[in-house]
Amino acid sequence: MQHYLGIDLGGTNIAVGVLDESYRIIARARLKTRAIRPAAEICDDMAKAARMAAEQAGISIADLPWVGVGSPGSVNPKAGVVGYSGNLGFRDVPLAAMMQERLGVTVYTENDANAAAYGEALAGAAKGVSNVLAITLGTGVGGGVILDGKILSGRDGAAGELGHMGIVVGGRPCSCGRNGCIEAYASATGLIRLTREAMEQHPESRLWELAPSLEQVDGKTAFDALRLGDAVGTAVVDEYVEYLAYALVNYINIFAPELIVLGGGISHEGEPFLERIRRAMEGKVFGGVNHTRLACATLGNDAGIIGAALLGKNAIGNP
Amino acid sequence: MQHYLGIDLGGTNIAVGVLDESYRIIARARLKTRAIRPAAEICDDMAKAARMAAEQAGISIADLPWVGVGSPGSVNPKAGVVGYSGNLGFRDVPLAAMMQERLGVTVYTENDANAAAYGEALAGAAKGVSNVLAITLGTGVGGGVILDGKILSGRDGAAGELGHMGIVVGGRPCSCGRNGCIEAYASATGLIRLTREAMEQHPESRLWELAPSLEQVDGKTAFDALRLGDAVGTAVVDEYVEYLAYALVNYINIFAPELIVLGGGISHEGEPFLERIRRAMEGKVFGGVNHTRLACATLGNDAGIIGAALLGKNAIGNP
Repeated sequence: MQHYLGIDLGGTNIAVGVLDESYRIIARARLKTRAIRPAAEICDDMAKAARMAAEQAGISIADLPWVGVGSPGSVNPKAGVVGYSGNLGFRDVPLAAMMQERLGVTVYTENDANAAAYGEALAGAAKGVSNVLAITLGTGVGGGVILDGKILSGRDGAAGELGHMGIVVGGRPCSCGRNGCIEAYASATGLIRLTREAMEQHPESRLWELAPSLEQVDGKTAFDALRLGDAVGTAVVDEYVEYLAYALVNYINIFAPELIVLGGGISHEGEPFLERIRRAMEGKVFGGVNHTRLACATLGNDAGIIGAALLGKNAIGNP
Repeated sequence: MQHYLGIDLGGTNIAVGVLDESYRIIARARLKTRAIRPAAEICDDMAKAARMAAEQAGISIADLPWVGVGSPGSVNPKAGVVGYSGNLGFRDVPLAAMMQERLGVTVYTENDANAAAYGEALAGAAKGVSNVLAITLGTGVGGGVILDGKILSGRDGAAGELGHMGIVVGGRPCSCGRNGCIEAYASATGLIRLTREAMEQHPESRLWELAPSLEQVDGKTAFDALRLGDAVGTAVVDEYVEYLAYALVNYINIFAPELIVLGGGISHEGEPFLERIRRAMEGKVFGGVNHTRLACATLGNDAGIIGAALLGKNAIGNP
């Protein structure tokens, strides 16, 4: 029976999973990343966690066809190198070669958002779909693009920074240094800012019942107020959805994917949220008719592990 | 010696070219499209023009490996069908099959902007480059995306509508029905509007020497005023370049291509224009460093014919 092993390297945790041949996680291991420290030490712990997970699954690393690692930052999958990751303090780290040395099998690496998109495309909400955009609405806005079943990498693996598409010339400052990126509007951070601004202007809003102080506002507050019938909360959600829908129409005009998968915390709002987005997109796609479906991610945080575990399929071209 | 034949089907002209094996046009033919009339009649004339060009080149249609047709509108290259073209009055026209019947060889079809991008990638400014965006700054803003040497088609061939990426939520109305698309700002039409608005506000500008009435403004007027040292003309060009650079940074963040090729009338401004765009993009690309080169298209109107002629390579996967 074929198994796969994926490592999701994060700024906080090293999360490892072993998959069975139907791409389900059957064993896990987890260690603290303890960044920032030398890449060699982090690789030692990744190898250790991989062995722990393999043992738990009752397999040997040598039986695996390959191992995959999803890493934050800019990753060149062809070279197997993490060009830069601020979270990890990595610069030009030959991650694939370092892990290969430790594990004795071929190692593939990818940007973590791309790996997660690949996971959703092979085993999650987009299973069986060849052309997919996966967009994560979390602290930031991440994304990955799957075209004809393959991860879009671009030059040096720099493609797919979907959160840094500008939609408002001269708009809100973004963490990347530009103005008006979709990340500044459609991230949870962006939604929290919109919510707080509305609360400051509307002391009468029931938003204040849900979050008695501005510090207590989170990505759910406005949606909860909407469910209570609060006009101000509803207006915040509508504004948030308008920006998001504007960006999604852009992606559809550019990629014409079959499916867009929304992940991250805000995607837990589910079908009613999707329905609002669909209404806001109505008639806006080029040509008037939108053939791109919209769905919520189903793998949650496991998408990164699952996608990483299957990276060999992307490299070999056998999705 | 291998020859190729391409047909650029436009709203006004049917333009045919025969290419030699180094992708140079060695024979041409041209007939009026006389749209809107039945697709069968237009196909008859395309076949006639193809035979004229072949005869002039001293070859027979039967010697060709295939024939390619670039068509305006939404084209599904896999099905060989023009889904919709307003200019031609086409709806669900099986163009490839209709031409195949008339010519007796395999016929491939693509959207004309995609075909032109492919031409630049195989024989023009982007020759030898695998990941290229080609953007046409003309009456509208068209575009094509070449990834790993292949045309990005998306679902039903609807991908690559690069002109309809919105960059200003609630911005200027676009021909597509949305607001704030890059086409509304970076097309020649957009530049002409910016120029006219500046003239109305600045009766002292030398723009008025170059265009004594607003009707005489074209895509060159502001650039000519800049060359005369006119402050208002310079400000118009700067504003135009700012919008264009903002959109190009978006494309780079999304695709990380090796090269962006600018075509269309405004690209005739050449290297000084490119240099202004590069300066406006400085420090704006995600990660801070821009590795994507910028160049002007070199094939002009022939890009469409050349790209169409080589479509078989795209279909077969042998660029």
